[in-house]
Amino acid sequence: MIVNMSDNATPEQIEHVIQRIREAGFQPHITRGTERTIVAAVGSGGRRHEIEALCVAPGVDTVVPIAQPFKLVSRQTRPSPSVVEVCGIQIGGPDVVVIAGPCSVESREQLLETAHGVKKAGATMLRGGAYKPRTSPYEFQGLGIEALKILREAREQTGLPVVTEVMSTEDVDLICEYADMLQVGARNMQNYALLRRLATLQKPILLKRGPSATVKEWLLAAEYLLAGGNRNVVLCERGIKTFETATRNTMDLASIALAKELSHLPVIADPSHGTGKQSLIGAVSRAAIAVGADGIIVEVHPCPERAFSDGPQSLDIPQFERVMRGLSDPLRRVVAPLVSSA
Amino acid sequence: MIVNMSDNATPEQIEHVIQRIREAGFQPHITRGTERTIVAAVGSGGRRHEIEALCVAPGVDTVVPIAQPFKLVSRQTRPSPSVVEVCGIQIGGPDVVVIAGPCSVESREQLLETAHGVKKAGATMLRGGAYKPRTSPYEFQGLGIEALKILREAREQTGLPVVTEVMSTEDVDLICEYADMLQVGARNMQNYALLRRLATLQKPILLKRGPSATVKEWLLAAEYLLAGGNRNVVLCERGIKTFETATRNTMDLASIALAKELSHLPVIADPSHGTGKQSLIGAVSRAAIAVGADGIIVEVHPCPERAFSDGPQSLDIPQFERVMRGLSDPLRRVVAPLVSSA
Amino acid sequence: MIVNMSDNATPEQIEHVIQRIREAGFQPHITRGTERTIVAAVGSGGRRHEIEALCVAPGVDTVVPIAQPFKLVSRQTRPSPSVVEVCGIQIGGPDVVVIAGPCSVESREQLLETAHGVKKAGATMLRGGAYKPRTSPYEFQGLGIEALKILREAREQTGLPVVTEVMSTEDVDLICEYADMLQVGARNMQNYALLRRLATLQKPILLKRGPSATVKEWLLAAEYLLAGGNRNVVLCERGIKTFETATRNTMDLASIALAKELSHLPVIADPSHGTGKQSLIGAVSRAAIAVGADGIIVEVHPCPERAFSDGPQSLDIPQFERVMRGLSDPLRRVVAPLVSSA
Amino acid sequence: MIVNMSDNATPEQIEHVIQRIREAGFQPHITRGTERTIVAAVGSGGRRHEIEALCVAPGVDTVVPIAQPFKLVSRQTRPSPSVVEVCGIQIGGPDVVVIAGPCSVESREQLLETAHGVKKAGATMLRGGAYKPRTSPYEFQGLGIEALKILREAREQTGLPVVTEVMSTEDVDLICEYADMLQVGARNMQNYALLRRLATLQKPILLKRGPSATVKEWLLAAEYLLAGGNRNVVLCERGIKTFETATRNTMDLASIALAKELSHLPVIADPSHGTGKQSLIGAVSRAAIAVGADGIIVEVHPCPERAFSDGPQSLDIPQFERVMRGLSDPLRRVVAPLVSSA
Repeated sequence: MIVNMSDNATPEQIEHVIQRIREAGFQPHITRGTERTIVAAVGSGGRRHEIEALCVAPGVDTVVPIAQPFKLVSRQTRPSPSVVEVCGIQIGGPDVVVIAGPCSVESREQLLETAHGVKKAGATMLRGGAYKPRTSPYEFQGLGIEALKILREAREQTGLPVVTEVMSTEDVDLICEYADMLQVGARNMQNYALLRRLATLQKPILLKRGPSATVKEWLLAAEYLLAGGNRNVVLCERGIKTFETATRNTMDLASIALAKELSHLPVIADPSHGTGKQSLIGAVSRAAIAVGADGIIVEVHPCPERAFSDGPQSLDIPQFERVMRGLSDPLRRVVAPLVSSA
Repeated sequence: MIVNMSDNATPEQIEHVIQRIREAGFQPHITRGTERTIVAAVGSGGRRHEIEALCVAPGVDTVVPIAQPFKLVSRQTRPSPSVVEVCGIQIGGPDVVVIAGPCSVESREQLLETAHGVKKAGATMLRGGAYKPRTSPYEFQGLGIEALKILREAREQTGLPVVTEVMSTEDVDLICEYADMLQVGARNMQNYALLRRLATLQKPILLKRGPSATVKEWLLAAEYLLAGGNRNVVLCERGIKTFETATRNTMDLASIALAKELSHLPVIADPSHGTGKQSLIGAVSRAAIAVGADGIIVEVHPCPERAFSDGPQSLDIPQFERVMRGLSDPLRRVVAPLVSSA
Repeated sequence: MIVNMSDNATPEQIEHVIQRIREAGFQPHITRGTERTIVAAVGSGGRRHEIEALCVAPGVDTVVPIAQPFKLVSRQTRPSPSVVEVCGIQIGGPDVVVIAGPCSVESREQLLETAHGVKKAGATMLRGGAYKPRTSPYEFQGLGIEALKILREAREQTGLPVVTEVMSTEDVDLICEYADMLQVGARNMQNYALLRRLATLQKPILLKRGPSATVKEWLLAAEYLLAGGNRNVVLCERGIKTFETATRNTMDLASIALAKELSHLPVIADPSHGTGKQSLIGAVSRAAIAVGADGIIVEVHPCPERAFSDGPQSLDIPQFERVMRGLSDPLRRVVAPLVSSA
Repeated sequence: MIVNMSDNATPEQIEHVIQRIREAGFQPHITRGTERTIVAAVGSGGRRHEIEALCVAPGVDTVVPIAQPFKLVSRQTRPSPSVVEVCGIQIGGPDVVVIAGPCSVESREQLLETAHGVKKAGATMLRGGAYKPRTSPYEFQGLGIEALKILREAREQTGLPVVTEVMSTEDVDLICEYADMLQVGARNMQNYALLRRLATLQKPILLKRGPSATVKEWLLAAEYLLAGGNRNVVLCERGIKTFETATRNTMDLASIALAKELSHLPVIADPSHGTGKQSLIGAVSRAAIAVGADGIIVEVHPCPERAFSDGPQSLDIPQFERVMRGLSDPLRRVVAPLVSSA
């Protein structure tokens, strides 16, 4: 880290910073410029927060971090991509996975119809909510254990591994019995009690990016899981909150390429939450794969206009089939340049 | 709610919407315009989500909600302001409360020195973190129960009631033994498992606004608490995440006036997290009170540059005393107009 | 538009609204619900702003617009896509166009080397800034007319049509002499004096989305051009400003699909400004085409680390050649589902 | 500036960076850490953009700027606050100024009634739009020169100096004849052609912050004016664009304190655009003054529900009188702490 002194810092103030850097376990290295002095804190074993807090010391202008704060998720720690396996499905390998299913499990009939439908269309895994994080307490909160049992039945009938959301440490054991992969929802990305609990398992985790999380914060949330011992982590970009309201969120597709550049973890995309709009899901799914995503997760419902939740962004089964077919279309051709004198 | 048909909607599509509105438990009311038809869903007992999901029905352009989704927190339910009492301190009454203390409890000495210092300067309550939500797993995570014991001692010595953050349902019982008010942190504002648990208590709750929560979402999080039976809720604006990085967050002071217009709950402000910058806290505290906040919560540390967390935004005790004195300064005088012909 | 009365609106207040709707040239249509009354303003010839302003009339809760405010750019006005032709290059047709070149024209050698390089790699058009909008007055402001002459020479040598930015009404005539397409930069998207001037031309316009413009505001900026008589408009998504700072802007690729759904105008993507990061440009270019963009515009410089502007996001010529080859790679294959009992 | 090398940078790559720093006119200063090397570019006369562009050189991780990019607007250049005088009214002095008037000049009667009303209530200056930047080409665009004449008449009758917006370089001379202060609107904050023209005048300029401008970008826009020779610049915070839609913009009041900390220029606040909501303007005006603003600018209309533009955020004259009276109310009293053992 670099401590950037003010223009008018006194020799005593500079000396104080040098002293504090030593106390924090780093070596100070001083650069005296024509206008200002900077002091680098060199070394790897010191207490970073003590350097950060120097920004309030007299004569200090700013403190600038240099190194990335994450370690185990970093490409520098593990240059080759990780592959996370869920019941034989490889996420992060050469092929892309497609996870599909309803926002919420509403009934046995609804889920089984969807499961068979998405499997026939080519989905690789099944999603479905049993415990639902809902903005309002008056909205449908999920069927709970009843939903978990229906999900298990769907897996038995279709062979599709199941991913479902876990919202609380208290539900972890129960959900582990029924599901093949646990999802940490966007609103819980920084629920550290939950992350620490999931870090003690080997069950694969689908970690959604929080609606206001930077890529750095998202990777640090994953770092909690790896630091605690669970390396089976798949990241999921699902859109961030911005001023644009024409879509439910703003799908940050470039963050997928960036996360894969910074980290070895697999990354998938959720165009359903990312757009909130049925009509955009096909195009954004294609774009996600083009940008390098290792898979997509899509909401499908037999009758979206009767869905208990997320109807506006759910595909019906024929629409999902069309999206799946669209994923194999080639990109549009680049036009050859004309040679003319204009 | 209003279902806004497309310009080219067919009579059959309009009839389908009318039928679905009836099935959802509402009365349809049709307005035929020159270009398009709108159908209002009238009534109060129906299933709102079924109307929302009609946006994907054929011939429908958009579905527009009309009524606010929150009830118990609304001024329409209770026109007069609520007052929440914490050990005799009234939040939401005629006077403003000042909650002060360190980000984290680091040691007995650090906390007691701070507690006595802020009390002498005029603080009304003591804050201090025992369980810390930290972006990185490698940062200080709090002293846990040890910190709770120190907070209790500080309360015994100073008489200041204590507020501390609860991060997990599993810690609720323990923290209730030691603290007078429980804080739900910004990152847990939509941790519904936690909200549902806290709703079963009568202990006062300090509910921070999430960094990407709209005022509506914030009030709906409070609605979880009231709907579950806990009416002792104080809202806290602590800045939202925006493109501006010169401050840690963007303090949305107008949201305090708005929340108090929409809801009867008390609202306080956290200028420490809202700005992340020691030098701005005095000015923003004054502005918070001017805009109508019922109190402020401020981070104070005996030596901010040695703080384990949030040093850059912590005041030392003399700085806090100056901020407190500044809170009683009058506003600047409005200049009298000149009468000249320019 | 719909005027949504408060729960406690009086009959006199409702009558006042009805009266005002008539005065504004609309027909009022009343729906009395169990809790509240709404009044629709029906018709097409009235003064919309008078209905919008009713939100401050006594007893009114909100005023909700129903119809989209743009007309000539809308798909409802013209269902089939527009094609804009620039010297024989079709933008919006079956193929995608690739516009490449340096951020700024820095010298004759720099531009000609780039122009020949990008043409050889397959670019369709040449970009290059003569007048540069720079955040700081101390940064390079462009070579002006000297740059325009160099651009013309490059076009003569390579046959590539030229697009360059116009920043002021005063430069319009001069730039029209030299360039084949005029770019309105992101910061000028709502420079209405400039838009009104460009609307009087037939020269093709590349209209960049403003960094904080919604899709609706972007389409309304285009509406200025069409309403003034210039239908040769190409939209360009170049990233929006969000809390994420790991990329220069947040590329809103879904907005490309949305803009093409709402409007008949061609839409291209600018991954250079959208990401600000050399290493992400190939992936984001592929994604832009996958999501439906009609082209891309990319910054290329013979030696990015010596560029006068935008070096960090500029590709060198071999990198551009690799990006071009990547545009024809197929999407990754969707994995076939396993049939197992897990 | 600091060039932060990658962990695996080779000696040749480091040498290349050192060489380039010298070529750009700086002195290189090397710090070799345990994990990585950083190279500072020391000196003040070099070409900064060449250092910035080194982020794409092989072996370079990031380039980190250290010094602030603005000069003439900085407190370091001029430690004491600037006072800008408009016809004898001092902006930036001990008292706060209140600028009031309609969004648009709609008629002689409307403006004169407003001017006399706001003057009686205590306003210091008159605002009124003659040329209006409107999102849609179908909205009222202003009365132009007719409005300027009416504004002049109002000034003659009331003695209130007049501020009005200039949208284009072509209108500058005309507006200068009629107005005492020229406003650069938020959407034109980075219209550099306009800024450069206004920099050649001595007329006071009111420079609104752009809806997505950081404080740094805002100060750099002001730097254009000072660098060109016009030191009579007043900054105006008017809200930024965020995800929150309950208010028209998000009023960033802390930015006022920050701008005054970084710069010597006066700063005023525009609560009308900042909130878009009549009911919040009184509270936010008070907060703006409490945070340190040198004045406020408020929209007032004799009948907001009939306003041609910005009706929802305009006060009528009695409401404005109440807001003015509220500006002299003292802050709420801080409650004295209870001494109890809880």
